[in-house]
Amino acid sequence: AGDALHALAFEILASPQTHPDPFVRGELVSTLALASGPEGMAGGQMMDIEAENATFDLQTVMRLQALKTGALIAASVEMGAILGHIPSEGRTHLRGYARDIGLAFQIADDILDVQGDPAKAGKRLGKDQAEGKATFVSLLGLDGAKTRATELIAQAEASLAPYGAKAATLKEAARFVIARES
Amino acid sequence: AGDALHALAFEILASPQTHPDPFVRGELVSTLALASGPEGMAGGQMMDIEAENATFDLQTVMRLQALKTGALIAASVEMGAILGHIPSEGRTHLRGYARDIGLAFQIADDILDVQGDPAKAGKRLGKDQAEGKATFVSLLGLDGAKTRATELIAQAEASLAPYGAKAATLKEAARFVIARES
Repeated sequence: AGDALHALAFEILASPQTHPDPFVRGELVSTLALASGPEGMAGGQMMDIEAENATFDLQTVMRLQALKTGALIAASVEMGAILGHIPSEGRTHLRGYARDIGLAFQIADDILDVQGDPAKAGKRLGKDQAEGKATFVSLLGLDGAKTRATELIAQAEASLAPYGAKAATLKEAARFVIARES
Repeated sequence: AGDALHALAFEILASPQTHPDPFVRGELVSTLALASGPEGMAGGQMMDIEAENATFDLQTVMRLQALKTGALIAASVEMGAILGHIPSEGRTHLRGYARDIGLAFQIADDILDVQGDPAKAGKRLGKDQAEGKATFVSLLGLDGAKTRATELIAQAEASLAPYGAKAATLKEAARFVIARES
C-alpha cells in the first residue's frame, strides 16, 4: 500500500491538473523525490533499522528523525511555497518553521510512546523502550522533552510572523503537532 | 532499499540533466508513476499476495503478471520512445513488443522456477509450487509454457520489423528474456 501511494503521489504531482506550468510540476516532483529517497525518509528508515543494534546519541537521533519524518513535513511546506511562487531564497522562514515542527512532531511521538493512551493513539505504545531504542525521552527525560517540544513550537510560530494572518493555518498545524493524542 | 531506489528514479527523471524539455521530463515521471503504482507494479504485487489464498485462472495470472512485471518493462520501452520524440500514436509496434517480452519474461521465470539451476539463478527455486500458486507452468504445462514463450518472442521480434537495424538492441533484449538462466 505504501509503494502504491508513493507512486500515486508522483503521478498527481506530474499531472497538468496540479499546475499548468511544467517547471513547477518538475520542482514538485524533485522536492518529493529528494524528501522520500535515500537523503530523506528512506535514509531515515535505514538509520531506524540500524538503531536497533546501536546506541545513538542526541545528535544522531535528531539526524535520524530529520530524515525519517522531518524531510516529508519540510517537503509539504516547501511544495506549498513552490505552488505559491515564492522563490527559493524567500523560503528561509518557512524552512525554519518546517524544521522546528518536524522535530517537535517526533518529540511528541516519543512522549506519546511513553505516556499516551493506547485507545486514543490507535497503536501499540511503549515500543521504543521495549526495543531499547534511544528516543528524545530517553535522552532528555520526559520533562526535558516536553520543554524542548514547547520551545520548538514557539520558535516555529515566531518564524511565521512575517506572513501575518495568512499563516493562521500553519500556526494551527504547529500547535496541533504537540497537542495531538494520536 | 526499494523505497529509496523508487524515489531516486523519480529524482533522476525530474532532473534537467535527463532532458532539457520539462514536458518530456513530466511525461517520463508520469509514465514511471503509472507503471509502478496501483495500476502497475504495486497493484500486481497486491494480486500476488491474494494469489496465496486463491486459485487464479490463466487470464488472472496474465493480468497479475502484466501489472507486476510487465508494466515496468513496458514503461522502460515507452520512456525510450518519449526520449526519442516518437509521438504516442506512433508507439503501437513498440507497445506490442513490450507487452510480448513482458509476458515471455514471466513465463521464463515460471519455467526457471521449476527447472532452473539454483546456483545460476541466484535464488531459491520451486517457491511457487511450494506456495500452491498458479503459474504459467501449472496452467499450460512445461512444454506448453516453453512454446508460448518462444511464440511471444517471435511475435515481439516481428513488431520490431518497421525499425530495421535500429532495433538490434531491442531484438537482443527479447532473445535474452527467454535464454537467461537467472
